[in-house]
Amino acid sequence: MLDKIKIVLCQPSHPGNIGAAARAMKNMGLRQLTLVSPAQFPSKEATDRASGADDVLASAVIVNTLEEAISKCHWVFGTSARTREFAWPQLAPVDAARKIVEGALDQQVAIVFGSERAGLSNEQLQQCDFHLSIPTHPEYSSLNLAAAVQVISYEIYQQYLNSLNQETSVPLLGSKASQEVVGGLINHFTEISLALGFMDPQNPQKLLPRVRRLFAKAQLEIEEVNILRGLFKAMLQKL
Amino acid sequence: MLDKIKIVLCQPSHPGNIGAAARAMKNMGLRQLTLVSPAQFPSKEATDRASGADDVLASAVIVNTLEEAISKCHWVFGTSARTREFAWPQLAPVDAARKIVEGALDQQVAIVFGSERAGLSNEQLQQCDFHLSIPTHPEYSSLNLAAAVQVISYEIYQQYLNSLNQETSVPLLGSKASQEVVGGLINHFTEISLALGFMDPQNPQKLLPRVRRLFAKAQLEIEEVNILRGLFKAMLQKL
Repeated sequence: MLDKIKIVLCQPSHPGNIGAAARAMKNMGLRQLTLVSPAQFPSKEATDRASGADDVLASAVIVNTLEEAISKCHWVFGTSARTREFAWPQLAPVDAARKIVEGALDQQVAIVFGSERAGLSNEQLQQCDFHLSIPTHPEYSSLNLAAAVQVISYEIYQQYLNSLNQETSVPLLGSKASQEVVGGLINHFTEISLALGFMDPQNPQKLLPRVRRLFAKAQLEIEEVNILRGLFKAMLQKL
Repeated sequence: MLDKIKIVLCQPSHPGNIGAAARAMKNMGLRQLTLVSPAQFPSKEATDRASGADDVLASAVIVNTLEEAISKCHWVFGTSARTREFAWPQLAPVDAARKIVEGALDQQVAIVFGSERAGLSNEQLQQCDFHLSIPTHPEYSSLNLAAAVQVISYEIYQQYLNSLNQETSVPLLGSKASQEVVGGLINHFTEISLALGFMDPQNPQKLLPRVRRLFAKAQLEIEEVNILRGLFKAMLQKL
């Protein structure tokens, strides 16, 4: 189960944080690390801070975009310090950890962290199913990146241990569509919207974030995606 | 309430960990830091890693012994990675955090962390009321010091937030004896035991740890200490 959980660090700027995050992960039984365009990796500082988790660093996957990092994932949790204007399904760490452990029974789960300076962008946050926020004191709310990975990894491992003590663990989530499948749906939606003149081709960003949010809230299953794409296909054939 | 909670780092060897611990504390509303014989402090590395929590470093108290650090504290929680042969009242982080927040309503609470290399010694652990262990994966169980401070500070702050949502918070703990008062009792016990020939003066460590453990489990109140000391005093006068 823990092997289906992936930590994704987007544009980390300090190699020490990458190493410390790897150690935090391995302490809590997590091993899948993906780095999106790290400023510096591999590096001695990362290896030093990883200590006994250098194997997690060695098997880390490097990609160029968040899309690549999460395309095969069914559930994506984005960490965010701020309350965004654009309200998304929002979870506290302990509730997120319960969902993560439940989802990882048979599906791929990613938890995405933004860069040290800026966190996740709105565009990145819109690629997530849930937003996840660690409550901090208002006087100094900026957590170190590796510290945030530690808190979330800790909560996941505690919920995992709790789940072992339950008599049965029921995978409630059915056949959740992966990000790749939802991405295909969104492309299909864009195509039909442009064809219908429903979307302004000069300014697609007015409409797309709302559609992404709708799909995130819906927690789309594969069958539902097929229904929607069937509809779009029928509409395109009419035009 | 949070201002009655003190983090004590015993013999920290890496100044970076002191700084990162200060940041972890302030992120979770904790400000009282005590350092027992730090290898290097102050230091630029600590200040760098503290980031916006340099004020916590600036007000840190430096002492030579754990005794000095905790003498005015009523409740002392010692962190320990291992299960010790010598079984002490043991708590998971979330349960410890509940007790810490309850105790800090009107009493001083310390959470004590050992050095990076060796953790707390058995002697140091015997000065604590409770032992506190962060569950980790057996494959790599050694948490970074600042990461451990982050997890515990996080749990304390979450329980603090939970307590704000309760209608009433009842201080259940009465007039708990401080470590200084319990220390006086133990000295008094030693005196009477030696006078009675009950304790081997060549080998007091056979008996004292068991007595300390007994007192820890009893969660002694001031009135109880007074009763015991009254008894010891009466016997000493007889001898």
